[in-house]
Amino acid sequence: ELAKAMLNRHVGDNVETLNNLEIEQAAPVLAALPVERAVEILDQPEFFGGPELIASLPAAHAAALLNAMSADRAADIVRLLPEDTAPLVLAVLDDESRSAIQRLLVYPEDTAGGLMTTEFVSVPSNFTVGQTLEHIRHVERTRETVYAIYVLDPATKRLVQMVTLRRLISADPSAPILSAARESKPITVTPQTDREEVGRLFRKYDLLAVPVVDHFGHVLGIVTVDDAIDAMLQESSEDVQKFGGMEAIDKPYLQMGFGAMIKKRAGWLCVLFLSEMLTASAMQSFEAELEKAIVLTLFVPLIMSSGGNSGSQATSLLIRSLALQELRLRDWWRVAIRELPTGIVLGSFLGIIGIARIAIWQSAGLYDYGPHWQLVALTVGTALIGIVTFGSMAGSMLPFILKRAGFDPASASAPFVATLVDVTGLVIYFSVALVILRGTLL
Amino acid sequence: ELAKAMLNRHVGDNVETLNNLEIEQAAPVLAALPVERAVEILDQPEFFGGPELIASLPAAHAAALLNAMSADRAADIVRLLPEDTAPLVLAVLDDESRSAIQRLLVYPEDTAGGLMTTEFVSVPSNFTVGQTLEHIRHVERTRETVYAIYVLDPATKRLVQMVTLRRLISADPSAPILSAARESKPITVTPQTDREEVGRLFRKYDLLAVPVVDHFGHVLGIVTVDDAIDAMLQESSEDVQKFGGMEAIDKPYLQMGFGAMIKKRAGWLCVLFLSEMLTASAMQSFEAELEKAIVLTLFVPLIMSSGGNSGSQATSLLIRSLALQELRLRDWWRVAIRELPTGIVLGSFLGIIGIARIAIWQSAGLYDYGPHWQLVALTVGTALIGIVTFGSMAGSMLPFILKRAGFDPASASAPFVATLVDVTGLVIYFSVALVILRGTLL
Ligand SMILES: [Mg+2]
Ligand SMILES: [Mg+2]
Ligand SMILES: [Mg+2]
Ligand SMILES: [Mg+2]
Ligand SMILES: [Mg+2]
Ligand SMILES: [Mg+2]
Ligand SMILES: [Mg+2]
Ligand SMILES: [Mg+2]
Ligand SMILES: [Mg+2]
Ligand SMILES: [Mg+2]
Ligand SMILES: [Mg+2]
Ligand SMILES: [Mg+2]
Ligand SMILES: [Mg+2]
Repeated sequence: ELAKAMLNRHVGDNVETLNNLEIEQAAPVLAALPVERAVEILDQPEFFGGPELIASLPAAHAAALLNAMSADRAADIVRLLPEDTAPLVLAVLDDESRSAIQRLLVYPEDTAGGLMTTEFVSVPSNFTVGQTLEHIRHVERTRETVYAIYVLDPATKRLVQMVTLRRLISADPSAPILSAARESKPITVTPQTDREEVGRLFRKYDLLAVPVVDHFGHVLGIVTVDDAIDAMLQESSEDVQKFGGMEAIDKPYLQMGFGAMIKKRAGWLCVLFLSEMLTASAMQSFEAELEKAIVLTLFVPLIMSSGGNSGSQATSLLIRSLALQELRLRDWWRVAIRELPTGIVLGSFLGIIGIARIAIWQSAGLYDYGPHWQLVALTVGTALIGIVTFGSMAGSMLPFILKRAGFDPASASAPFVATLVDVTGLVIYFSVALVILRGTLL
Repeated sequence: ELAKAMLNRHVGDNVETLNNLEIEQAAPVLAALPVERAVEILDQPEFFGGPELIASLPAAHAAALLNAMSADRAADIVRLLPEDTAPLVLAVLDDESRSAIQRLLVYPEDTAGGLMTTEFVSVPSNFTVGQTLEHIRHVERTRETVYAIYVLDPATKRLVQMVTLRRLISADPSAPILSAARESKPITVTPQTDREEVGRLFRKYDLLAVPVVDHFGHVLGIVTVDDAIDAMLQESSEDVQKFGGMEAIDKPYLQMGFGAMIKKRAGWLCVLFLSEMLTASAMQSFEAELEKAIVLTLFVPLIMSSGGNSGSQATSLLIRSLALQELRLRDWWRVAIRELPTGIVLGSFLGIIGIARIAIWQSAGLYDYGPHWQLVALTVGTALIGIVTFGSMAGSMLPFILKRAGFDPASASAPFVATLVDVTGLVIYFSVALVILRGTLL
């Protein structure tokens, strides 16, 4: 049936098919597939059902699949197994797979250690090119990649060099393997390296894999480019979600439970609400002015939102530049001296539109802003310049401040910036009003 | 001097060094490097100075560099040359490079055609494994990747299969090349395929390269994984910037001119400002109520911002899921039936906090909300449930609506959603007030 149809299709397509089935329907299909094809599917990080499926199988069958899987994905699945199932399954794995998985489980998911696999190709540095090729032919089937070959010191097992397969096949088979290496030192990471930094190295050096070494220089594993891509996009998704004002979720939308979703969103929403309460306090302290000049309240939402909008623009620029390391912490002042004039110019645009709006409505008789409508318009225009400028500055500096304080700059979310600017914006607006309207309305 | 120090360093590091120099300082350094190393640097998409540098060199020197560069990057640089320089440089290129570059220049930058390079390995399907390896050894130096080999029909030149180098080196040299191919059809794209879709294919099928074919099945070029990664991250950056409420910028922050930056930001800022003016209109139409119950104005910013915040959360979830195709257009109702209860629960949290705040301030004598303060608190609480629910719904449905209408779902920016919810939120707030406070305050 379905299992048969899946035999000659790309694994990526099979994953999509199975992801669209309920776990109860997917389990028999996967069980009916030859082990090789089932493993191929389980090896895909896009396949969600892995842990549930493995948990639902008899331990022996589960172990057979995990033995044959790539070590990094097997570890990802074991990590998500129910607490009582995991030891049972681990117990019946073959020794090599069990020790590989246990070594990988040590590292947090968002580090190089959590991304790496133990299935790489290494040869001692006294091998020839021909010996290396012969070795690769033997182990090819069980390695995630054979395009990067790691050359180790035969005595200490430390990493000496990296050789690419493309150089290898062009080299003289009798030449020593190191003759095919490039001159520069290999790029390496440690197991603790953050996956965001791993992604940066892949982009900068156009890598297909990067070795993960301990401080003795021993290769613990490699991170391959497909997993690095997934990590980069997860980091991007996290940044978008944090920027949207919530905690990052690590699953696709429809895979999140209702309670988990509420938890990810309620925290920030309540914090923002409590902070925004300062606007009520600010309004309360200006209540006397409000009563004298109700016309001022008409523009409160308009003016406040403009500051939040310009802040949100600036923040989106900055968190992205910081995440991709186009900007460093020390560049903050370069940004500040650009955002200040930017904010003033943008604020002036809005100020002019705001003044025009009041003038037009007043002259056309659409609304009566009172005898001092020119002064009200001036107040609105001036406040807009101040608030938009403050918004740009706050929105651009907040990511730097958060980064400096050791937080994720992406926590400078659009709602966070808007809240900050809303409170300050009210104070700016009423202060401008007090200056301009004193003796007339106030 | 500097050029000497750069000889034994990784090209990625050299790019960083040169990017930090002014163009006048970088030019002599690059000129002092051997052509091979200079080309390596120019080949990196992270190197910004390319077009200026090429334009500043004598045409013969410029042509020598462009001839030796990879065709895709050479095309990227020619694309950005000043209009009067480009034809001069093209004229002195060698025929092969010129025709490759001109073929690549046809395609927009954000398509597979704009990402591809013409430097790939292809062999006729009547080759043996050994012949293919021999061919690869000959052309290795001039190809972007040799890990994917494209097998063409000898008569029609159409793409028949893709063979990986790892399978090739394990195969019997006298066997026909097609014996080393996998059974399933090769994944291909057309030159018009959007780069976002290209990225999705790389992720789904864990590709190192994808062939770009025309409708006859001829291979026009290949997109390599390093360029696909850059494209994916550019798309992510675009999404963050659009979500922040501005037009996407295609350069790092500090590379953008002041005027260009204003242009990218002013448009949306003015549109949002004009839309937000509806809040002033809404306030004006409720002016009679405002005068009777100034206490209501105190909570306007607080209540409005909560709707925007919950909307921004929902939008960040949705634009990301839509961009990564975790969700399709047809899933809109699944999202709607999840966001409705989510919004009600989140709104109730905030409503309770809001009511508590008023009750505490009133009882503690911090502020007097008047004799009907319980009704005011009820109004605030009820309005919060309505507004947060509306925010979640609007924020989650807007990306679908935009996508349906053919726009980029990422245009559903946080400020856009906030504006939408601000206006509606005011109406909800005053309507709730009219119902609850009629006969007492209003
Ligand atoms: Mg294994
Ligand atoms: Mg992280
Ligand atoms: Mg992992
Ligand atoms: Mg790169
Ligand atoms: Mg992997
Ligand atoms: Mg991050
Ligand atoms: Mg060329
Ligand atoms: Mg696009
Ligand atoms: Mg290109
Ligand atoms: Mg993948
Ligand atoms: Mg390229
Ligand atoms: Mg896009
Ligand atoms: Mg707001």
